[in-house]
Amino acid sequence: MALSRLNTFTTKSSLFRQQLPQNVKCLSNLILGEPSGPSVKTPIPGPKSKEMISELNNIQFANTVIYFTDYNKSIGNYIVDVDGNVLLDVYTQISSLPLGYNHPDLLKVLQDPDNQRTFINRPSLGLFPGQGWPQKLTSSLMAVAPKGHTQVTTMACGSCSNENAYKAAFMWYRNKQRGGAPITEEENNSCMMNVGPGSTPFTIMSFKGGFHGRTIGVLSTTHSKAIHKLDIPALDWPIASFPRYKYPLEDYVEENKAEDRKCLAEVEEQFEKYNKAGKFVAGVVIEPIQAEGGDNHASPEFFQELQRITKKNGAALIVDEVQTGGGASGKYWCHEHFHLPEPADFVTFSKKMLTGGYYSLPEFRPQQGYRIFNTWMGEPSKVLLLDKVIEVIKRDNLLSIVQASGKKLMDGLMDMSKRYPQHLKNVRGIGTFCAFDSSSAEKRDEIVAKLKEKGVQSGGCGDLSLRIRPALVFQPYHADIFLHQLEKVLKKIKTA
Amino acid sequence: MALSRLNTFTTKSSLFRQQLPQNVKCLSNLILGEPSGPSVKTPIPGPKSKEMISELNNIQFANTVIYFTDYNKSIGNYIVDVDGNVLLDVYTQISSLPLGYNHPDLLKVLQDPDNQRTFINRPSLGLFPGQGWPQKLTSSLMAVAPKGHTQVTTMACGSCSNENAYKAAFMWYRNKQRGGAPITEEENNSCMMNVGPGSTPFTIMSFKGGFHGRTIGVLSTTHSKAIHKLDIPALDWPIASFPRYKYPLEDYVEENKAEDRKCLAEVEEQFEKYNKAGKFVAGVVIEPIQAEGGDNHASPEFFQELQRITKKNGAALIVDEVQTGGGASGKYWCHEHFHLPEPADFVTFSKKMLTGGYYSLPEFRPQQGYRIFNTWMGEPSKVLLLDKVIEVIKRDNLLSIVQASGKKLMDGLMDMSKRYPQHLKNVRGIGTFCAFDSSSAEKRDEIVAKLKEKGVQSGGCGDLSLRIRPALVFQPYHADIFLHQLEKVLKKIKTA
Repeated sequence: MALSRLNTFTTKSSLFRQQLPQNVKCLSNLILGEPSGPSVKTPIPGPKSKEMISELNNIQFANTVIYFTDYNKSIGNYIVDVDGNVLLDVYTQISSLPLGYNHPDLLKVLQDPDNQRTFINRPSLGLFPGQGWPQKLTSSLMAVAPKGHTQVTTMACGSCSNENAYKAAFMWYRNKQRGGAPITEEENNSCMMNVGPGSTPFTIMSFKGGFHGRTIGVLSTTHSKAIHKLDIPALDWPIASFPRYKYPLEDYVEENKAEDRKCLAEVEEQFEKYNKAGKFVAGVVIEPIQAEGGDNHASPEFFQELQRITKKNGAALIVDEVQTGGGASGKYWCHEHFHLPEPADFVTFSKKMLTGGYYSLPEFRPQQGYRIFNTWMGEPSKVLLLDKVIEVIKRDNLLSIVQASGKKLMDGLMDMSKRYPQHLKNVRGIGTFCAFDSSSAEKRDEIVAKLKEKGVQSGGCGDLSLRIRPALVFQPYHADIFLHQLEKVLKKIKTA
Repeated sequence: MALSRLNTFTTKSSLFRQQLPQNVKCLSNLILGEPSGPSVKTPIPGPKSKEMISELNNIQFANTVIYFTDYNKSIGNYIVDVDGNVLLDVYTQISSLPLGYNHPDLLKVLQDPDNQRTFINRPSLGLFPGQGWPQKLTSSLMAVAPKGHTQVTTMACGSCSNENAYKAAFMWYRNKQRGGAPITEEENNSCMMNVGPGSTPFTIMSFKGGFHGRTIGVLSTTHSKAIHKLDIPALDWPIASFPRYKYPLEDYVEENKAEDRKCLAEVEEQFEKYNKAGKFVAGVVIEPIQAEGGDNHASPEFFQELQRITKKNGAALIVDEVQTGGGASGKYWCHEHFHLPEPADFVTFSKKMLTGGYYSLPEFRPQQGYRIFNTWMGEPSKVLLLDKVIEVIKRDNLLSIVQASGKKLMDGLMDMSKRYPQHLKNVRGIGTFCAFDSSSAEKRDEIVAKLKEKGVQSGGCGDLSLRIRPALVFQPYHADIFLHQLEKVLKKIKTA
């Protein structure tokens, strides 16, 4: 157990302005050189950041930039901006850093001359993979594959991973329809002009509040925020409701069960409606926790029943673990918490996995070459880094640390929800994948802004929620720092 | 001029089995350690490759793999497989290697400790860009921007670049339609359910034979091969014909002009048809040379007139330079050869540029944040490498070398088209971006296969074409080697 070999010390660094509570114990050594706490010197963005934002804005729209970052100084759980502010990062580049900043083991991968060539010779992996590629896939992606999964396909990013999972589902569905008949000339000719029978009227079912990416295909299954979708053409694909629970869960058991039943009935209705219309539903895509859409959780029973209904209707279940995957839930894959009776048909990933891609069951292998294909098909250098990440996760027992830190976060948030019920409610989380709601979007934004002033980088999601997305090296004492700063903020927030 | 400082020697290395013609002079030194010619020891794929293909096939569909590559031994224009075969690579990972394999200057980028951190701290560029990012964009992408372009957006790959250019075109078009009116609540609510008015009925016009990627949106504008599109749902978007010229061009001046007129008339018809139906054409996407679709060229006059028609119809011209860009045409951007009266509205790129993305005119900047956005928005490490690539291109005058090597290739192919007219015809090319047709798909495949036996890695495209896509370090003496091996193959090909 990694925690046992960590040395303990109290944080009393005069280098950092933010006063930490005396009861914060630092279990450190996971990342040498990490500061003992946040330190804020200027308003954020500071003067240097503001100047750089203005420079960047000359060549691209830059109004989303929060601040410019000094990636040489950022370390572990701490992001350091160009004005010298040091923030505890519980947002981690929209949940995409497995080991925080400048992890020494990842730096060593780069320093090894044997590895450097991997970063400058990017192959077309579908044509000319490099020596050792199958072994590298086996020791990294396959070593942490969801139970029952023997197949993996690499891609560059999350959107691309979902796009290709949908494509594989369409091909599989059509292949079942063909029942072994050969592909006809009419199919080949018609698809070249975007019409049937070669182009199918097939659909993917998605859920209100879901987020599956921003390219035009997957954007039709994204329903988190209007600004993501406005003005873009969309496909007429079925959409069902995702459960919206009442919290605390133990007080609303029956209501939430009824919510599950209502949503599952909608799934059944959508299957019937679209299949009847010939717009056959080839797949159902769902996140284990709707992240971008507001950290909406659903019960294991909901997911188990969804799998049953999907299977009954001959469609593929595509579990999108782009944000939930890679360890933040305390397991590698968040949907493992649901104990599905059978493996999901597809599990897509990106972000903390560094490479995009998807696991799939063998029946979803393409029947011909060049159907699931592109120039690069992902990138070996990402898998090289992932291989080291997985080694570190095992060596340092990071999933246990996630569980311990997650418990600390949840206990602290629950406690605060009782003491500040007007600002912090509906606490929910698995591992460190935690969130709470505020009373309004404005209040939530105010908390995010004030946390930044206190040296904590967090992020919003959905309409009212603040999401906590630390790296896997976020330890219980980091949770204490976060909770302490959050409480300072909540104390000063005015009730509307 | 770089060629003047290169030393000259003849190739007579006993290390390599393939005998080279005595008249091949090697102007070398661009890349130290490059072999003097190809060397084939085993059938390709060799026994080691076959074993690895079988291993890979256990975890993913691997039937497209040509051979496994030793990326430590591959150097410059030569790809070395795991069985020790050394091939002159005129395909370069589907045209995606600007400087060939293991270029010493790129290796130095990786060896510099200041750079190594860039490869392990991947930011969310829309939120937390790193110190120096605007300067890095300026010294790399903006330094080679097409004339008139002041704006650049980075993305991960070619498909994603086109997807986002389409999205920006849709937003711009709708914004013009709104005429300054604010976004309504009805628009915001309806787009969340994939219906109008928030989701638009807008379209992108594309061309038969075009290739713009494989995610579902851009796949609707791809019309190169049926196997890329089969079974996937497609959008009802307008499609026009791309000119198909008769060669040699000088013998078919009037016929080819008539072909231009016919295709442009189709463009006008499609605009009228779709605009009338309310499926407004927001953009027209086109490659300067249709690469995947068979290296189809069109005249500068065609492109000039297409720009005029597109503008007249209030649509955006999206020039897809994913394969043609980055120097292979002898200019940075192939469409610069067309002398368009005004800059294209969008120029998209990837492959040889190492990063994906697009240039666009200022009027296409999004009006709100998070509309053109994703987790990573490209990657600084790719731009770091691109910065060095651009420095090397300038320092070594690689665009001049491309022009000289391209002339050598074209002269040689033209000559062979007279001597082997039954196997090699319709020679066309700009810079080293060259191709010819064979008499059938089978003959073309036979030539590609036999070239491999002779130590040359080439690639097919379209139905009948062989495409030549060397790196920018491909020098005239490499062209001689290629032509010499090609002639050996043609001599032995049986006429059908």
